[in-house]
Amino acid sequence: MTGAADPMPRIVLLCRDPALEAWLAEVFATHAPHLDVQRPGDADAGAAEVAVCWYPAAGSLDRLPALKLIHSIGSGVDHLEQDPSQPLNVPVCRVVDPDHSLGMAEYVHWGVLHFHRRFDQVLNGRSTQQWQRPVQRTARDFQVGVMGLGAIGTPVARRLADAGYAVRGWARTARELPDVATYAGDAARDDFLNGLDVLINLLPLTPATQGLLAHEVFDRLAPGAALINCGRGGHVNEAHLLEALDRGRLRGALLDVFEQEPLSVDSPLWRCPQVWITPHMASAASDACIATQVAENVRRLGAGLPLNNLVDPALGY
Amino acid sequence: MTGAADPMPRIVLLCRDPALEAWLAEVFATHAPHLDVQRPGDADAGAAEVAVCWYPAAGSLDRLPALKLIHSIGSGVDHLEQDPSQPLNVPVCRVVDPDHSLGMAEYVHWGVLHFHRRFDQVLNGRSTQQWQRPVQRTARDFQVGVMGLGAIGTPVARRLADAGYAVRGWARTARELPDVATYAGDAARDDFLNGLDVLINLLPLTPATQGLLAHEVFDRLAPGAALINCGRGGHVNEAHLLEALDRGRLRGALLDVFEQEPLSVDSPLWRCPQVWITPHMASAASDACIATQVAENVRRLGAGLPLNNLVDPALGY
Ligand SMILES: NC(=O)c1ccc[n+]([C@@H]2O[C@H](COP(=O)([O-])OP(=O)(O)OC[C@H]3O[C@@H](n4cnc5c(N)ncnc54)[C@H](OP(=O)(O)O)[C@@H]3O)[C@@H](O)[C@H]2O)c1
Ligand SMILES: NC(=O)c1ccc[n+]([C@@H]2O[C@H](COP(=O)([O-])OP(=O)(O)OC[C@H]3O[C@@H](n4cnc5c(N)ncnc54)[C@H](OP(=O)(O)O)[C@@H]3O)[C@@H](O)[C@H]2O)c1
Repeated sequence: MTGAADPMPRIVLLCRDPALEAWLAEVFATHAPHLDVQRPGDADAGAAEVAVCWYPAAGSLDRLPALKLIHSIGSGVDHLEQDPSQPLNVPVCRVVDPDHSLGMAEYVHWGVLHFHRRFDQVLNGRSTQQWQRPVQRTARDFQVGVMGLGAIGTPVARRLADAGYAVRGWARTARELPDVATYAGDAARDDFLNGLDVLINLLPLTPATQGLLAHEVFDRLAPGAALINCGRGGHVNEAHLLEALDRGRLRGALLDVFEQEPLSVDSPLWRCPQVWITPHMASAASDACIATQVAENVRRLGAGLPLNNLVDPALGY
Repeated sequence: MTGAADPMPRIVLLCRDPALEAWLAEVFATHAPHLDVQRPGDADAGAAEVAVCWYPAAGSLDRLPALKLIHSIGSGVDHLEQDPSQPLNVPVCRVVDPDHSLGMAEYVHWGVLHFHRRFDQVLNGRSTQQWQRPVQRTARDFQVGVMGLGAIGTPVARRLADAGYAVRGWARTARELPDVATYAGDAARDDFLNGLDVLINLLPLTPATQGLLAHEVFDRLAPGAALINCGRGGHVNEAHLLEALDRGRLRGALLDVFEQEPLSVDSPLWRCPQVWITPHMASAASDACIATQVAENVRRLGAGLPLNNLVDPALGY
């Protein structure tokens, strides 16, 4: 396909959703036309060495005997687990887009302001023409905590600190960030949580973080605190969340991600006025960035160079 | 009342709303107990030299023959006009609180994000369990314009520029602001407005700005633009606004101020889903700041020194 010295490994696109697969084919045709991109129905698809995935169908990875690299088109890789045939010895990479984190910072900033300045209360009073000026708290006394200080959590914490909030951050290992009080590991978790006015989840979904957002966490926050979840639906114990909202332990929740997406029309979350639902929109990598980063890793694979944005298989992120 | 060399001028509190008058008496008792503060019913009120006002009742200024200073407790002074007895030769001062503009920057930033990231569309889709990911536009291509670059408009424009938006600003006279394209006077108004995605009003209400937000302005903005009004209700031609929203010329409006406050339960604004109503909450000066700034001007009046934050009677702001 190219005149380069190294052979260019063949790619196959694996998405459960056919519309997404078609869009992805377009993205590569536009931004990386030099790549050999197959769709699962194509004759040579079975010989692919690279699988480019977003929620692959169960069993689809099993049909690729030559597989040498699995590439997620987003920053999360938890969706690969939905295909139980994912081979354990094949490296997994993800896309890390700086503009991506800018979009996330915007989304989270809206959410923090929404609860801090009590737009939630004001907008919910609309149906009764309520006119009640909420108390105005200064940002520097408003405690916000970011769970996960990775490629996305770090710029989000920075943005909130720049906006004048009292910001804390939590990660697995020790991290340093100007104007952010950081906490590391399970032992420091309660200190991180105690008295937070808003808790923001930007953790990856792994066995260690699954179901983390439950009563043990909510009960540490300030009474009437709010939750912003931009990680994954699997982080939240939904029954605990609804109960905490119901008894006023939490004042509200802004949720962008759900165990099942689109969120089922029957979900009780739709009927809870303190829950603010958005359709997994917080942030996406740009088309150009997806194509460029995948192409670069495909080149590196062909040339025997180390891969970018490799996931640690032991940690799952 | 004090041991100072200069006599301390007597103050009277003038608010149409009795609850506000009582709160203001508390504010001065707490933060400036050395002042001689009278309420209109008090025996010595008629001898006051300083009237501290927020929407004074009609005729109340007329009853003060010794009046030497009218002090607003907010940054706006348009509410004084509601008392037609306001003497033209008495100086008018206002409160200018730096923290005040921080609160305004938060409010406006929420509003810009609300329209930029299309939370308005997502939240309005809630009743039908709509799941539709909006297009994500980058902030640097999103055009926001601030009308009024005074004590409040300037830090608001700064904050939006820091957040990465393409920001323009408009004032009566030429102003320079880093990363903000500035425009001055009526002649430059259309250039300022052309193609804006969000228009933010932070002008004072004067004869020159009354009713400014009408078709001539809306028709210049980008199709589907949004309006954020934090100036005064009198800036908006409400019939024009509702019509522009109705025919989709504007996508939405976030309104904090209204001709009549509280907004009447019969107002058609309540029934328009693209109108986001808040109860004049964008920002208020702190109690301590109100008391301290009034006390300082009272001291200056007594000592014959120039007054702070004096309003220009010819311009009305
Ligand atoms: N809603 C959306 O639109 C959207 C968009 C993009 C991403 N996301 C979500 O955001 C997540 C994070 O993305 P990212 O790129 O920032 O991930 P990342 O760079 O891998 O960072 C993950 C962070 O979480 C911390 N962490 C992981 N496991 C932990 C544990 N058991 N205890 C404490 N901290 C732990 C890590 O700690 P160390 O620093 O110590 O390793 C790291 O700071 C993604 O996985 C995805 O679920 C959502
Ligand atoms: N919603 C709320 O909670 C809230 C809170 C506080 C204030 N406010 C409103 O915000 C307004 C502004 O406050 P501020 O302290 O920033 O006022 P300010 O310091 O007096 O500044 C007024 C600005 O408007 C400009 N301006 C005045 N008349 C103009 C005209 N005819 N054409 C173009 N520009 C004009 C001035 O231009 P120059 O710079 O050339 O003089 C100046 O930049 C207040 O009057 C009040 O109505 C609302």
